[in-house]
Amino acid sequence: MSMADPVDARLPDLTEELLDFLRIPSISTDPAHADAVAAAGRWLVDRMRRAGLTASLETTAGHPIALGRHDAGPGAPTLLVYGHYDVQPPEPLGPWRSPPFEPEVRDGRIRGRGAADDKAQVLVQVAAAEVALTTSGLPVSLVLLFEGEEEVGSPSLGPWLSDHADALAADHVLIADSMMFGPGRPSLIFGMRGIAYVEIEASIGSTDLHSGQYGGAVPNPANALAAVIASMHREGRVAVDGFYDDVVMPPASLLEEWRTLGFDEEAFQASAGGARPAGEPGFATPERLWVRPSLDVNGLVSGYTGPGKKTVLPARALAKLSARLVPEQDPVRIEAVLRDHVARMAPAGVAFEVRSLQRNRPWRDDPDAPLFRAAAAALESGFGAAPVRVAHGGTLPIAPELRDVLGAPVAVMGLALPGANMHAPNEWFPVAHLERGIRTMTRLYHELAEGP
Amino acid sequence: MSMADPVDARLPDLTEELLDFLRIPSISTDPAHADAVAAAGRWLVDRMRRAGLTASLETTAGHPIALGRHDAGPGAPTLLVYGHYDVQPPEPLGPWRSPPFEPEVRDGRIRGRGAADDKAQVLVQVAAAEVALTTSGLPVSLVLLFEGEEEVGSPSLGPWLSDHADALAADHVLIADSMMFGPGRPSLIFGMRGIAYVEIEASIGSTDLHSGQYGGAVPNPANALAAVIASMHREGRVAVDGFYDDVVMPPASLLEEWRTLGFDEEAFQASAGGARPAGEPGFATPERLWVRPSLDVNGLVSGYTGPGKKTVLPARALAKLSARLVPEQDPVRIEAVLRDHVARMAPAGVAFEVRSLQRNRPWRDDPDAPLFRAAAAALESGFGAAPVRVAHGGTLPIAPELRDVLGAPVAVMGLALPGANMHAPNEWFPVAHLERGIRTMTRLYHELAEGP
Repeated sequence: MSMADPVDARLPDLTEELLDFLRIPSISTDPAHADAVAAAGRWLVDRMRRAGLTASLETTAGHPIALGRHDAGPGAPTLLVYGHYDVQPPEPLGPWRSPPFEPEVRDGRIRGRGAADDKAQVLVQVAAAEVALTTSGLPVSLVLLFEGEEEVGSPSLGPWLSDHADALAADHVLIADSMMFGPGRPSLIFGMRGIAYVEIEASIGSTDLHSGQYGGAVPNPANALAAVIASMHREGRVAVDGFYDDVVMPPASLLEEWRTLGFDEEAFQASAGGARPAGEPGFATPERLWVRPSLDVNGLVSGYTGPGKKTVLPARALAKLSARLVPEQDPVRIEAVLRDHVARMAPAGVAFEVRSLQRNRPWRDDPDAPLFRAAAAALESGFGAAPVRVAHGGTLPIAPELRDVLGAPVAVMGLALPGANMHAPNEWFPVAHLERGIRTMTRLYHELAEGP
Repeated sequence: MSMADPVDARLPDLTEELLDFLRIPSISTDPAHADAVAAAGRWLVDRMRRAGLTASLETTAGHPIALGRHDAGPGAPTLLVYGHYDVQPPEPLGPWRSPPFEPEVRDGRIRGRGAADDKAQVLVQVAAAEVALTTSGLPVSLVLLFEGEEEVGSPSLGPWLSDHADALAADHVLIADSMMFGPGRPSLIFGMRGIAYVEIEASIGSTDLHSGQYGGAVPNPANALAAVIASMHREGRVAVDGFYDDVVMPPASLLEEWRTLGFDEEAFQASAGGARPAGEPGFATPERLWVRPSLDVNGLVSGYTGPGKKTVLPARALAKLSARLVPEQDPVRIEAVLRDHVARMAPAGVAFEVRSLQRNRPWRDDPDAPLFRAAAAALESGFGAAPVRVAHGGTLPIAPELRDVLGAPVAVMGLALPGANMHAPNEWFPVAHLERGIRTMTRLYHELAEGP
């Protein structure tokens, strides 16, 4: 490619711009960094204006939203792209090989806090629009929606979306905040799990007791809680009545696709600190993670937990427990079946209380929808390989929220690579993916404009 | 009774002496109070000498033992009485109505740290010997063995006993450190439970995981630990193979006696912070506490235990678990059956480790032995009521130790009352029990001297 290529021509400046952007410590969880978060929002609005977009810094109850728009006129479809400009705290600082907010390029990687999550991916979106606008044109209407609260659970995004739903009407939604399946293997994510997170407390009375003076003559709430938790699984499956009632599996063709995906069990085990893959019988690891629900203890505490021993018969025992949900499981209903189960299994003399801590719906879109077909063609053009269509075991509350408020299908398209150290020291993003990302997006505009 | 009665005559001075003794803050667990512990030991040696006993302060690896002796000559039986002169820390200080080490007499109660546990009971022993020696004579050989480390687990007593076993040869052993069944209802304790205390750790790998990225595809050690713990009980009984193998029940006549004991379930429940009595089917509360083994979780910890939620899939989970044992259960064997059970129940992919934290044998003596008959007669004379013969659910390692080293039967005879606030603020001992205790002991000397 010659330097006359509009993408190549822009890359040196773009890398410098990204380093600038990464120097702003926009740590949304830390009130002491609120000014930096706002500065990153303003930087982005300014950058979008220079790209030729209409841009504004939108006020919310929390950190602002940086909004950019291009109007392609009547008849053109609208693509809304979501990303975020806030970052995780850099701690622990010790392991960083270069300071988190003094980014640098080394070995083909842009290194610094926020490089992968999500500033490079955000800047690719702005640059792609700019390239399109200054060359062959931008044939779709574009809404770039970059929030500053993703790392703190997006508390202001939902209300803001609802308030601006009409102005945000879109035909397609792209979430630009994830990673590829592997080097040279782009991916499109069409679903993520939801969550129903509860806290279960078992208690027998007001005070901890002496295990010699009471042991054997009063119920033990920790033993009782263990029994209730144990009763929730049988032979690798969740044994809570009604738990699987609403589970809908994706098309068999897709599951078939996954069998040839080359999911690397060894790498998975290594990434899990050596934990051996295991789970629901009859399903492979990707299925267990992406399209089957799970029920895990997240925390347990009762009695004496320090070093050595204490002969206490605890008055109470607490478990934190969460189910990862798949369509069409409803977190409210799952919480109800868990409550019913606890009530049924609770032994006499032990009081159980179930408290709701979190509810998020699962999200799944049709991987054969026009958005996915267009994005697949675009990724193949940008990365030289067709993307794999996968789901994800985690929870992304904004995905079902965007779909519901905007009434449009959602796809997650990540440009970072596995091992990018998101949320960890030494975060990085491949320099080459700036170019490939821009080429993917400019192609996607055309794919969407031309229609299926 | 006239003032000519030798016990009555001594009571005013004795109360003052006890207040003196209680002013010494002999807190054995606190190195800063080591001098006070030694001072209390010297106070006791001095007091025993004034009572007419041969007395010495015996050096150990820890706090000293105050030893007093009377030799009644060949043919006389030897009674060894055990007590302790160290006390629990007074904290929390807030609830004390008078300062813990500024003892006072109020409402017929001597109040101060150590009043019930165990200084009044120790002083009764010295005073009883003194009364006997200055009146009708002391017809048994006596060994008064008062240690200064009971409240820290008696680490030096066992080695010291073994080193001095020959010099301590005794026919009867009395432990003077407990409480009566109720006001006006003395008791003799003929058995206490042992303990096998273990720590069970379940782990899947080296690091905590994200429950969205791994949930359902790796085993959860907290769920697995809960299942293993739950499998240890079935329908109120311990369901560990071999657990009950060596259990020996006391004579049916004794269990029959307990049915008419008037064990107060309501008071028991109130003392348990409202916990409802429950346990092994077919047994009443006193049986469950005193002569049936139990298996209780003492502590549980895994993953995130703070407020709110964290979507962690923990790498490890830990339970502290102890069995209270009855004759002839052996803590080493019980630990082995627990290990076998854990190994059998551990699900694939979860590594379990069982670590031993404490092993103490149960103790039970024959409640019809001459010592018990003599002590029953003595208590009836001192308190005007025959004692109830009971066991106790707690663990007193010195009881089996004394029996084994000295080869003599052991009885526990307590003079404090339930609610004496041992180990708690506002500890107290009934003034009247000084007199009754002395009369009990002087009678006991004669009962033992005369033989069955």
